[in-house]
Amino acid sequence: MSTPLLVTDFLHRAREFFPGREIVQYRGGETAHRYTYRDYHDRVLRLAGALRELGIRPGDRVATLAWNHHRHLELYLAVPLAGAVLHTVNLRLEPGEIAYILGHADDRVVVADTSLLAALEQARADRPDMLVVGTDGAGPGVLDYEALIEAAPPLTDPPPVAEDDLAALCYTSGTTGFPKGVGYSHRALYLHTFAACLADGHAISERDTVLHVVPMFHANAWGIPFAALMSGASQVLPGPHPAPADLARIIATERVTYTGMVPTVAVDLMREATAAGTGLDSLRALVLGGSPPSEDLVRELEERLRVPVFQGWGMTEVSPMGTFSRPLPSSEHDATARRRQIRKQGRLLPGLRWRLVGDEGRDQPHDGVARGELLVRGPWVASAYFRDEHPECFTDGWLRTGDIATIDPDGYLEIVDRAKDLIKSGGEWISSLALEQALVAHPAVGEAAVVAVAHERWQERPFALVVPAPDAVAEPADLLAWLRERVPRWWLPDRIAVVDALPRTSVGKIDKRALRDQVAGGLFDEVRGRT
Amino acid sequence: MSTPLLVTDFLHRAREFFPGREIVQYRGGETAHRYTYRDYHDRVLRLAGALRELGIRPGDRVATLAWNHHRHLELYLAVPLAGAVLHTVNLRLEPGEIAYILGHADDRVVVADTSLLAALEQARADRPDMLVVGTDGAGPGVLDYEALIEAAPPLTDPPPVAEDDLAALCYTSGTTGFPKGVGYSHRALYLHTFAACLADGHAISERDTVLHVVPMFHANAWGIPFAALMSGASQVLPGPHPAPADLARIIATERVTYTGMVPTVAVDLMREATAAGTGLDSLRALVLGGSPPSEDLVRELEERLRVPVFQGWGMTEVSPMGTFSRPLPSSEHDATARRRQIRKQGRLLPGLRWRLVGDEGRDQPHDGVARGELLVRGPWVASAYFRDEHPECFTDGWLRTGDIATIDPDGYLEIVDRAKDLIKSGGEWISSLALEQALVAHPAVGEAAVVAVAHERWQERPFALVVPAPDAVAEPADLLAWLRERVPRWWLPDRIAVVDALPRTSVGKIDKRALRDQVAGGLFDEVRGRT
Repeated sequence: MSTPLLVTDFLHRAREFFPGREIVQYRGGETAHRYTYRDYHDRVLRLAGALRELGIRPGDRVATLAWNHHRHLELYLAVPLAGAVLHTVNLRLEPGEIAYILGHADDRVVVADTSLLAALEQARADRPDMLVVGTDGAGPGVLDYEALIEAAPPLTDPPPVAEDDLAALCYTSGTTGFPKGVGYSHRALYLHTFAACLADGHAISERDTVLHVVPMFHANAWGIPFAALMSGASQVLPGPHPAPADLARIIATERVTYTGMVPTVAVDLMREATAAGTGLDSLRALVLGGSPPSEDLVRELEERLRVPVFQGWGMTEVSPMGTFSRPLPSSEHDATARRRQIRKQGRLLPGLRWRLVGDEGRDQPHDGVARGELLVRGPWVASAYFRDEHPECFTDGWLRTGDIATIDPDGYLEIVDRAKDLIKSGGEWISSLALEQALVAHPAVGEAAVVAVAHERWQERPFALVVPAPDAVAEPADLLAWLRERVPRWWLPDRIAVVDALPRTSVGKIDKRALRDQVAGGLFDEVRGRT
Repeated sequence: MSTPLLVTDFLHRAREFFPGREIVQYRGGETAHRYTYRDYHDRVLRLAGALRELGIRPGDRVATLAWNHHRHLELYLAVPLAGAVLHTVNLRLEPGEIAYILGHADDRVVVADTSLLAALEQARADRPDMLVVGTDGAGPGVLDYEALIEAAPPLTDPPPVAEDDLAALCYTSGTTGFPKGVGYSHRALYLHTFAACLADGHAISERDTVLHVVPMFHANAWGIPFAALMSGASQVLPGPHPAPADLARIIATERVTYTGMVPTVAVDLMREATAAGTGLDSLRALVLGGSPPSEDLVRELEERLRVPVFQGWGMTEVSPMGTFSRPLPSSEHDATARRRQIRKQGRLLPGLRWRLVGDEGRDQPHDGVARGELLVRGPWVASAYFRDEHPECFTDGWLRTGDIATIDPDGYLEIVDRAKDLIKSGGEWISSLALEQALVAHPAVGEAAVVAVAHERWQERPFALVVPAPDAVAEPADLLAWLRERVPRWWLPDRIAVVDALPRTSVGKIDKRALRDQVAGGLFDEVRGRT
């Protein structure tokens, strides 16, 4: 019973049991490529052979800088099969950050989309020995992916790999300091894959067609590519720069049954599908993660578009899935209870443990009221960073998530804030998340963000930025009156600024760090709003 | 990410997330006890404390000789929590075999039902230091289970356990030689539990109420108790000697959604439910394992009783589950294809690998025709026996299952015979299983068994024994005419004997070994039938 747990087993499984299932590659809402797991398997073996020919040895890092497409999916398995570590690089990072990350990971090869090569210039200058492969063609100093596959013998004698060896690596952008690398062992990804396929979890199965909206550079695309391989689900990849209209069309055309995304993308998709009348009813599950969705979004998706919504909480350090918000069986015929449960981030996946730790290091009760920082541990939770010491991120082997949460008596997690997004005013905490949710509940508000601004007397005070809903006019005075009925008086923002858009992080969340900088830099001083 | 995989984690999970779910204990078709996972957890901790007080140390073996009841379920978790090994002993074995097994395993304690104490006399004489605990009361030299729990402090500081440490142990009765012990590590049971809860596998979930018909002394009751704990399914235990009428009533009363059993028990259940008009329609899955069911059984269950039927293949050495017969998605609306697939033993569970090896050690094609011995390996497949060398059972780390099978192009396994049940006549193989299936297809036949008898000229020849269907008359001459149209002429049994019943093994399968002995001993010489 000592067989190692290797994520590459799922490649062999897909070849043996699901040879005819399809991988479909879109580009701008049109099919660009369509092939089977049989072909996929054969190409992965040749790609792994090509990596060996390029000199890749067990333990080496191979970076990718690519959108969601079938070649990226081939790299997901070919790199670990070659015994190497798949290092997916966030394509929205600044060239300097990319150069830092590639240097820190000491990548031997980077496989990149041609359209993204410019972002690699600094990294290439820093690392002249690093080989560059273009997923969609050759160029100066750039090898051609297809030519490599064409020329390589299939890797039929993969190097021996231990289950604790790294299969993948991903850097978190973080909010302070340098990006931190999270290494994923074969074992961690293997167990995470089983968890993704549990009947009570995401329940990825052979009957699914999954659409990868989550970027493949982001925490293994939530691990869904591995889950699809293991279970024989069809996979659909939207290609570069998928627009909301493309996503809606793909879901309808391919009869997609499962997809996951951040709420901001879901808002765009919902608006698009509503406006164009695109049916999304093939979806058995739309899973929202990354940040809590508004009540409106969940209601619109479920009631108007007939799309069952779930939430998950996770983070790069958790491979990334930690919870899933499947409602209690007793809520099946109780719409209110069901909605209340899916509006939370859900219960912990089997295999993981958690704690809720208060200010003084004491464990808090799971009563749905007491708040604390969420700590987690388990076989797919990081207990260290790649080549860096970050003792502040761990406590006795537990990962400190930085999320402030409650856990209710049924075991449902609710993230109430990021530790660093809490606003400390006059010695008391103000929840920026609660303020944002109250603002978004106003019909004229599309999106909202609340950040702290330094204050001489109170230490910090809240500053709110809102984007109006389409065709709506958001008046700061109205919003303030609205908030007055919903939050403690001392929580009322000192200023509400109405803006056209909010800055996004590279994974599509609202970029609080950038916002804080912009606010501090006086960027919004001229914007109309309450002063 | 180095957290160990411990099956005791599921106990903590059940307490945290499913404290109110129920465990229900029946006796003779009536509720005998009903309590929650919260109470279960507390009693398990006290039981583990009691074991420590009795002197149980990490690695010690604790035997059980018990029916399916809540105290047995408590031992399932309390023994591993104490760091010890749960050794479930088959209560249908002869006292001499029980004494051998308890001696071989060197059990420190045995926990037994009072009604089964007689079977322990020889073992107790052999092992005077072995402590005996009665699940339902004290006696001479027998400690009382409830008194121990009452007196013991909860084990809140369980000993450290590594994932490769054994959590359980089970002996296979085997057909030759002494029983062999199969040890299950925490890791193996943990991974097997995840496999049991996959959406494409048994899919045990929080929405289930599972009924443990499979004896708890048999290969961890297929691992379903652990799966129920992990997922929060309610558990129902039928108690000692469950009659078919009891099982039918329990399913209807408790609205059981999932159960598994051997086909012979399912036949009785089906007849009982049909005769009494008991609705079994709460079942979302009735899983058959242990031996292939007849076509009639599957059809009657599905068409008349509206019970979805699945099959699994497994064995004690596979923890025990190896395959599951969920039909292909493409068969969902094709009743014929669906039926054909669930009549096979199904596809391999993720995490396992298999081979089909022919006579000369060559791998056979998976074409649904070529036959070979099934070899398996994986993280919950035995690669050795407990304290015994059996090199003949393993080939390069692969378990030799002794099952002769085909695998079709869709990946569905079909067991066509046990290696030792094949009949070699004139240098050619005759399949006893195929003959049995042809006989059972006759309306007058309830059950059939075919064994080899020694033959001077042909080496071996088939001998058939049939039990008539209820109220039917089975005439050997008719059966022979029936077979003549269905099997090769040289397969026709030399003799067909009509009998009232067939001997059973301790797990309810037809006991071919006993039958061969009886046939060779002339037991059926006086039985009417073709000579």
